[in-house]
Amino acid sequence: MAGVMFSVSPVSRSRDAAIQQRIDMKTKPPGSLGQLESLAAQLAAITGVEKIRLQKPVMMVFAADHGIAEEGVSIAPPAVTQQMVKNFINGGAAVNCFCQVASMALYVIDAGILNAVESSRVINQRLGAGTKNIAKAPAMARETAESGLVLGAEIVRQRIAESSNVFAFGEMGIGNTSAASAVLAAILGRSVEETCGRGTGIDDDAFERKKSLIAEALERHQSTPEPEDTMNILASLGGFEIVQITGAMLAAAEKQCIVMVDGFIASVAALAAVRIAPEARYYMVFCHHSEEQAHTLILEALDARPLLDLGLRLGEGTGAALAYPLLQSAQSFYNYMASFDDAGVTAV
Amino acid sequence: MAGVMFSVSPVSRSRDAAIQQRIDMKTKPPGSLGQLESLAAQLAAITGVEKIRLQKPVMMVFAADHGIAEEGVSIAPPAVTQQMVKNFINGGAAVNCFCQVASMALYVIDAGILNAVESSRVINQRLGAGTKNIAKAPAMARETAESGLVLGAEIVRQRIAESSNVFAFGEMGIGNTSAASAVLAAILGRSVEETCGRGTGIDDDAFERKKSLIAEALERHQSTPEPEDTMNILASLGGFEIVQITGAMLAAAEKQCIVMVDGFIASVAALAAVRIAPEARYYMVFCHHSEEQAHTLILEALDARPLLDLGLRLGEGTGAALAYPLLQSAQSFYNYMASFDDAGVTAV
Repeated sequence: MAGVMFSVSPVSRSRDAAIQQRIDMKTKPPGSLGQLESLAAQLAAITGVEKIRLQKPVMMVFAADHGIAEEGVSIAPPAVTQQMVKNFINGGAAVNCFCQVASMALYVIDAGILNAVESSRVINQRLGAGTKNIAKAPAMARETAESGLVLGAEIVRQRIAESSNVFAFGEMGIGNTSAASAVLAAILGRSVEETCGRGTGIDDDAFERKKSLIAEALERHQSTPEPEDTMNILASLGGFEIVQITGAMLAAAEKQCIVMVDGFIASVAALAAVRIAPEARYYMVFCHHSEEQAHTLILEALDARPLLDLGLRLGEGTGAALAYPLLQSAQSFYNYMASFDDAGVTAV
Repeated sequence: MAGVMFSVSPVSRSRDAAIQQRIDMKTKPPGSLGQLESLAAQLAAITGVEKIRLQKPVMMVFAADHGIAEEGVSIAPPAVTQQMVKNFINGGAAVNCFCQVASMALYVIDAGILNAVESSRVINQRLGAGTKNIAKAPAMARETAESGLVLGAEIVRQRIAESSNVFAFGEMGIGNTSAASAVLAAILGRSVEETCGRGTGIDDDAFERKKSLIAEALERHQSTPEPEDTMNILASLGGFEIVQITGAMLAAAEKQCIVMVDGFIASVAALAAVRIAPEARYYMVFCHHSEEQAHTLILEALDARPLLDLGLRLGEGTGAALAYPLLQSAQSFYNYMASFDDAGVTAV
């Protein structure tokens, strides 16, 4: 990647034994808290062996439109992207409700929807008025994709400066499962059949059309120079929200913050981030197993097991907001649960 | 059941269509919140179509000892039951941490541990100093089991009088997976091989011993009068905490409160409660899929799909406390999420 650099440090493994010992001294049979134990170990390795520190958790929802939506590959028309942005800033969407329960601060970013919303509550980081139709042309110029990384990174850095260290990323964009499926196919070298699903629930006709358009997009992309370069893939096949989330995740990992990965779209951004800086993987907590079939491919590629599997197929960061209390519980047991010695309990 | 009666009313299904319509009018594709939608529908049917009402959630941890523990069927000695009760009242156990995150009030009940703890923070509902060894004799008299139902019910009714309407139940008792496996085998007519697992993690020798002792217990039980009667099964093979949880669940269902079911032991109590009063099933939210293999049998018998699957095998109500924020999120989206009309979003 020529234009933008991220320097993500590996998490030190030298403290793993100390962390595991601390977990094993807690008043419970070894391993009996299951996945919450590996989560606590990860959070401790990132934020501190003595105490897990989760500070000012942030949810950022990036919205953008997609040229391919003009082909009818979604259940909703493109106008819904803007309508939902208004819904987010008015507090009426699912992610608002879940962030409220989880006490997460919500930021709404316009990464490039068709028609901007005039409101101070929307953060303007527009890369354009929707991408081009990827079946026919590159989604955006490579320079635009690089600008997207920088913009996504910058907004995270601002929150880090205000001492946040937990970042969740959501998205809204009619047509964005098409872009994400195309990016996924190109990164993993998989077929459209493997990477394309029904999004929020299209019928058979729309599904066939979606697959055939993505196949065209992939064919077009393969004829460009360096088709395996991640930035080229993002520019050619991606979306404005996808590139900004990728940059945001990389900036969070660079500053050793926790990256909470939501469902399918956010996971494609996470995969792109890991291709750009492999060490970013260690900062990621996978929150939800999406109903979108191809999500499993990404989880396998990143060796990830999400915390929740509730059959969600909404996006918006909803799965990450729902999972945040589990991070708090991992923090709580790691920091405050008594050891066998503390409690006078016979160790097993 | 002669001695104790519970009158559990069915949940009215006449409002199901109104509830579903309300969920489908929310600004999201139909069904896209997956299991959280069916959870919201259940909570609304129980607590109110207009608004889901979750009030003063309570976690009750019932502790008891088991005669069979003298045979070495657990990884820990029986003394650990009392030690853990002290840990609970001192705030040092996993369930304390998770209740704190979920803002659930925690009550610790001595249902019959070997040696009582002198503390006003333990609620004394002792049915004895541990059950008899079920491999050799009935765990308790039938009258004792009936007293257990009444005591479990009474403590729930006290909290209902103080306006709680959400109850989660946990347990602590070295040896209690043996009792629970035996009760499960007797209720479902299954073999020891199918109902007996490794509890919190015993080795091969202890596992073989555990299965052979439970087989003896089942053989003994089959030779008693009316071996298929649920109260006889609980008395012959159960535990003091299991019978009190069964009574507590029935009392909560009787007053149309939400019953949050934790892992294996609590699910066996739930199964017994449903056998006593089938309508109790509708009030139950299954919180966690336990690592104990036989948990799947109960979930199938009760047609239940738990919210979480984190590989827990600890008990204490930990899975229920971890799941409570999901109930709050279901409440939040049902009560506060905008409809398509409210938000001016194009319905799909």
